[in-house]
Amino acid sequence: MGTIHGLGLGPGDPDLMSLRAARLLGQARHVAYFRKAGREGQARRIVEGLIPGEAAEIPMEYPVTTEIPFDDPQYNKVLSAFYADCSARLRALAEAGEDVVVLCEGDPFFYGSFMHLYTRLHGAVRVEVVPGITGMSAAWTATGQPVTWGDDVLSVLPATLPEEALARGIAGADALVFMKITAHLNKLRRVLEAAGRLEDAWLVQNAAMPEQAVLPLRNFPGNKTPYFSIVVVHGQGRRP
Amino acid sequence: MGTIHGLGLGPGDPDLMSLRAARLLGQARHVAYFRKAGREGQARRIVEGLIPGEAAEIPMEYPVTTEIPFDDPQYNKVLSAFYADCSARLRALAEAGEDVVVLCEGDPFFYGSFMHLYTRLHGAVRVEVVPGITGMSAAWTATGQPVTWGDDVLSVLPATLPEEALARGIAGADALVFMKITAHLNKLRRVLEAAGRLEDAWLVQNAAMPEQAVLPLRNFPGNKTPYFSIVVVHGQGRRP
Repeated sequence: MGTIHGLGLGPGDPDLMSLRAARLLGQARHVAYFRKAGREGQARRIVEGLIPGEAAEIPMEYPVTTEIPFDDPQYNKVLSAFYADCSARLRALAEAGEDVVVLCEGDPFFYGSFMHLYTRLHGAVRVEVVPGITGMSAAWTATGQPVTWGDDVLSVLPATLPEEALARGIAGADALVFMKITAHLNKLRRVLEAAGRLEDAWLVQNAAMPEQAVLPLRNFPGNKTPYFSIVVVHGQGRRP
Repeated sequence: MGTIHGLGLGPGDPDLMSLRAARLLGQARHVAYFRKAGREGQARRIVEGLIPGEAAEIPMEYPVTTEIPFDDPQYNKVLSAFYADCSARLRALAEAGEDVVVLCEGDPFFYGSFMHLYTRLHGAVRVEVVPGITGMSAAWTATGQPVTWGDDVLSVLPATLPEEALARGIAGADALVFMKITAHLNKLRRVLEAAGRLEDAWLVQNAAMPEQAVLPLRNFPGNKTPYFSIVVVHGQGRRP
């Protein structure tokens, strides 16, 4: 039986991959990754030039679900069938004695698509996970300010949540990280303003990638920002 | 002018260091790290055998402050003088044109001692930070379960906080990580029980180290656990 490795590749710069991830990638014979149809995919982009020439690539292309509303049960059904299909494909390889590497942006167990394969494969075949540097670590590093001090509480909040849920999360925390903010900037500015924290919020786009940009959130116009965007509000805890 | 590099070494296993951190370490001429007097120190332990033979080591030994209560202003004063002293030492090296590597467990900007040097050095000399895999990533990876799904909110809470603050943090979140839990297990069990989440809490000791152990928190007796312990409660969000 082969092993399926969920490889955390880190936030974007291949130089931030772990030694273990780099070694497993360098020995790989099967390299799987998610991508949108017709796109290269971020995970694949990180390892450009690093996949052994003789390795087989297994792109797993998301079904086009943009025309199905997110909360429609149909959406879940289509995605679920997709993940089951991908899992079966990787499982067959492992059962044939082949090791497979699955490329994951950031850390595989932190809001990643790999988790949907993991829950379907784990128990049936051997699955190993290599943690990675998260996108949020790269984002707060890019701001040039430490994110949590002393007894600071950090909340990580998907900006896709309703306004009240975001307000609750903000109230209980000192440091804040907002993920999945693509088209939620107006809402985010509103809840941060109401909590008196807009002045301290930084928008980090494409952290640890060549296009990295760091801007005060209040100065950034409009509701949309690139997919790899994170908002950071730093904690102000104890600092001797 | 030299550069001071804050190197995130990751959670403990040297194999989880980033390529960048490993390269900077391999070229280092001055390697600084914090440790308790008379101890090797965890950051130094991670890089055992990896420091170039010709490099100078700069152990920065914490002043013995255990006899001063934590909330005594004297405690802050002693630590502050210590950090100022260490910073001056590193700054002098950088001003003499030498690069210095400062070893940091986990991620330098996430609850790390390096931040106290960073705030004192940054602006005066060139300081570069290499993010690292956090101890919490290693902890949730060790549990064999993804930590955040879909729109889960993650709260990271220092167990040193008062019970009410912990309860507030727990209430607003789906997934939970508790840091700094050394002698706070009784309190932690109490607040998690009250929130109905004790059954789902995992105690991870020494994640990504040879002594790694994962146990249900409710089964672990007593109030004390090793310094490198993290409690994880997994989110249960959307999973197609």
